[in-house]
This record gives sequence, structure tokens and C-alpha cells, in this order.
Amino acid sequence: MLQPPVPLRRPTTGARILVLRDGPPAERPDRLANEEPMEIRAHGPGQEPVSVSVTMRTLGHDFELAVGFLFTEGLIDGTGDVGAVAYCEDVPTDEQHYNIVTVALTRPFDGSALRRTFYATSGCGICGKASLGHVSVTCAPLGPGPVVPRSAIAAMPDALRASQRVFEETGGLHAAGLFTVEGEPVLVREDVGRHNAVDKLVGRSVLDATVPLTNRILFVSGRVSFEIVQKAAVAGIPLVAAVSAPSSLAVEAASALGMTVAGFVRGRGFNVYAHPERVAPQG
Amino acid sequence: MLQPPVPLRRPTTGARILVLRDGPPAERPDRLANEEPMEIRAHGPGQEPVSVSVTMRTLGHDFELAVGFLFTEGLIDGTGDVGAVAYCEDVPTDEQHYNIVTVALTRPFDGSALRRTFYATSGCGICGKASLGHVSVTCAPLGPGPVVPRSAIAAMPDALRASQRVFEETGGLHAAGLFTVEGEPVLVREDVGRHNAVDKLVGRSVLDATVPLTNRILFVSGRVSFEIVQKAAVAGIPLVAAVSAPSSLAVEAASALGMTVAGFVRGRGFNVYAHPERVAPQG
Repeated sequence: MLQPPVPLRRPTTGARILVLRDGPPAERPDRLANEEPMEIRAHGPGQEPVSVSVTMRTLGHDFELAVGFLFTEGLIDGTGDVGAVAYCEDVPTDEQHYNIVTVALTRPFDGSALRRTFYATSGCGICGKASLGHVSVTCAPLGPGPVVPRSAIAAMPDALRASQRVFEETGGLHAAGLFTVEGEPVLVREDVGRHNAVDKLVGRSVLDATVPLTNRILFVSGRVSFEIVQKAAVAGIPLVAAVSAPSSLAVEAASALGMTVAGFVRGRGFNVYAHPERVAPQG
Repeated sequence: MLQPPVPLRRPTTGARILVLRDGPPAERPDRLANEEPMEIRAHGPGQEPVSVSVTMRTLGHDFELAVGFLFTEGLIDGTGDVGAVAYCEDVPTDEQHYNIVTVALTRPFDGSALRRTFYATSGCGICGKASLGHVSVTCAPLGPGPVVPRSAIAAMPDALRASQRVFEETGGLHAAGLFTVEGEPVLVREDVGRHNAVDKLVGRSVLDATVPLTNRILFVSGRVSFEIVQKAAVAGIPLVAAVSAPSSLAVEAASALGMTVAGFVRGRGFNVYAHPERVAPQG
């Protein structure tokens, strides 16, 4: 149930490219990150599946992506809600078969919850404050702790790169990793979409019944957007670190939710944008 | 009409951060890229506005983003369709006022076209081929030419960085630029979302009645996704170049549509993934 029933298609595709660098033009083989649409459907016992989302994603860890998306968007509450995950049976071609994932829940699925998410934002106007308000309603503020050594955060980019299999091949993917408080990598996922990589991590954790992730650090390869903070907050992650900068709304959300945000983790240092009390400066 | 009627809010926000690098922890002021939701509404003469999209974006060039989104998603056909662009009048607070942009069209707006876009993909299954099919229907294949000197493409990263005002301040934004065939930058836009930066460029061009952009190169700061190729194709752009790699589906789409894709534009060289006939290797 929790692992795809068939071998996954590869996350990369072969291609022939023309290299124009020093020296004469040269054709050579290369590998590209796959990007394919995936539809997520959900249903409760006896219900017809409802289409919840269509997202462009990199093949692989599709079940984790589906479960993680439902969880970080607040459509399921945890491991106990997930009955079974499967590729769709009733589509004509093999290619489509692997692009529709159906999550069978153990309780009725309220498809209108998706609409409520939208209205919760737009009903009181469209602005950062409304978005923040919605997240604050969904997520309880994070508790205190843990305290993470500065050296553990500074070492995360190298640890992430070492685990990034597809990036090595293609150079074209976002990565996200879950780390222990000591800076050990626990789980790394890659995707053409940064938020998908996070959903894959969280989905794996939901399937493993390890949420909330109150003793884990999330490290992402790019920027920290509001959406990343929102997803991390729903999963209970107390510290998000990244190679690049956070947005203003990401920092506002993190400040309100009690989440630590570190950015520009490069070389031996980084910047802290919210709740620095979780970073041990001498550690 | 085509310029916002009031001074824009700044695209960056001040913040105090804690810097943990060489030496003792130091607090210092910093600037963060703004990220705020924006709703795009559209209507024809005498029609009520219909909500078309809510996207997280960086403040600035909001009217361009709205018009560009409508154009690259195939919801308007060109400059003649745009009657007026305005911030929404009937919202309670100033903050919300600037986060809802209404585009008044000169002809009736078919809100169901949005749904058709989705069904065109999902009606025949969810897969890359279906997505490609949809784009091929929307976009006529690009004609031959222009031919661009290799040196012009290689110089684009530096030219883009030189024009990136907010990135200089925050380091946290995607940028996209339109260049002449000789490699001169014409227009640069930045956003937390790469596709928004492209929509802002295309929107400006629609407002200036310079689409299709058959003599322009699009250069983007990150990866080339399927969505970027799709938007460029709708705008008639014959060559897309990028700092990072394209996805497999982006290359498939470009190959089918006759678009040249260059990636890993770094140092003095780059790779060509589709239609190399537009690159002059000795130029």
C-alpha cells in the first residue's frame, strides 16, 4: 500500500545536446529531469474520488507527494486518515496510469475543504495578513526548542548535495532535506518544484507516522517562500534553513508561528531572520 | 490606464537579521523581497468581474503581471483585447486595494475558458503528451530565424544581473529578461515566482503592442520548466536561454514548437537542447 506496486519510471530522461563551450561545438548525451503532470484524487469510504490538485512534478515518490500535499494543505490530519494509496486503474494508457494518484481515506473526505481554503483567504480580502491569518488558524504555534548548533546548520548544504542523486545527473532540481537536530540528514527528496520536494518529505513522514516533526530541521536548496513556511508549520517543523533568502511574508509568518528561519546558508555561516533562540551561536 | 495610478509600494521590506558568519554574532539591517498574494479579475463590457487567478507575487508591475498572465494562459489574444487595467475599488483596506487587479476587456470575457484549459489537459488523461497537445493547439509553431551569435547568449547572465535591482538588495528573486538578437537587454522583471517574472515581461509587451516577440530572446535566471516554454511560445519568442537546466517536458515542448532552448549559460558557454539552428557557433 505505501510503496508503489510497480517499478517507478526513472526521474531522468536521456537527451542529446549540443555543447558550446571552449573549443568546437560538440554533441554529447545528457540526462534531463523529468517533469510530468500528476493529479491527486481523494475519497472517503464509499465515496467517488474527487480531483484535488494537478501539479507538475518529477517522477518518483508519487505516493509521498500525494499524501504530503493533502497533509500540508490541511485536507487530512495525520497518518490515521490514510487508508490506501494507489495509481488510478481506469485510465487508457500506461503513461496516464502513473500520473493519477488516488488516496483512499479512512474517513469521509470533504472536497469543499479545498474551496474553504481559498475563501478563507479571499473572503476577507487578498493580502498577506489574510494569508497569515489563515495559516495561524490552521497551525498551532510551535513550542520552544530544540536548540541547534550553528555548525550543524552550516554543514547542511554539503550534506544535501551529497544526497542529491538526480541533481548530480541533471543539475536541474530543487532539493529538500530533513535533518536531525545534530545536523544528520534523515531524508532527502528532489523535484522540479520546491514545494513538491517538501511535500514528498512530509508525505513520507505521514506514512511513517513520524509527524509532527518537532525534532527535525527542514533544509531547502533555494529560497524560502510563504508556502514553504506554511507547509513546514503544518508539519510541526521548528526550524527552516535555506541556501537563499526568505521572502518578507515568509519571515512574517515564521515570526508569528514561532518558527526559526535561517537563510543564505553558504560557506561557514548564515543569517537568521526569525526566532534566533533555536540557534546555538557557539555550537 | 496602463501605468498604476498611484505610487507602487516598494518591492522590498526592511528587516533586522542576525548574522552568524566569521566573527561574533552581529545584528544588522537587511532588505527582504516582498511576497504578497494578488488576485487577477477580468470582465467584458457590462460584465461582472470574474476571479481568474490568485498568485503569490513580488509587488511592482502588477498591471503587467495581470495582462501577461491573461495573455500567456490564452485568455486574451492581444493588445486590442485590453480596455483598461485598474486596482479594485471596492475593498475595505489600502493593503487589499493593491492586491486585486481588474482587467476590463474590449470584448466579452468567457470565464469558462479557464476551465476549458484544465479539461483540455485532463479530458484525455493526465500526461506530458496531453499537456504538449494542449500547447500545440494554442500555439502555432514558430517560424525560422533569427540566428543569434553564441557570444550574445553567453553574455546574458551578466547583463541580467546588472539590471536586477531588487536582487542586488535581497538576493532572493527570480529574474527574466527580454534581449535583442544582438544580446542587448530590452526589459528585465523580477519576482519571487519565475513564471510571474515572465508574465510581467510579456504583459509589458502586450500593453506596448509589441507581441508576438519574434525578434526577442527570453533569458531566465533559473531552470526552464514546461510552463516557461509554454508562456514563451504563446508570446512568439523563438529562443529561451537560462542559467540552469531545462526539464524533459520543456525540451519536448520546445522541440515540437520549433523553439530553441539553451541552458547552463555560465562562464563563456552553454548547452543547446532543442533547435540549435538559431545559434551561430562562431558568432
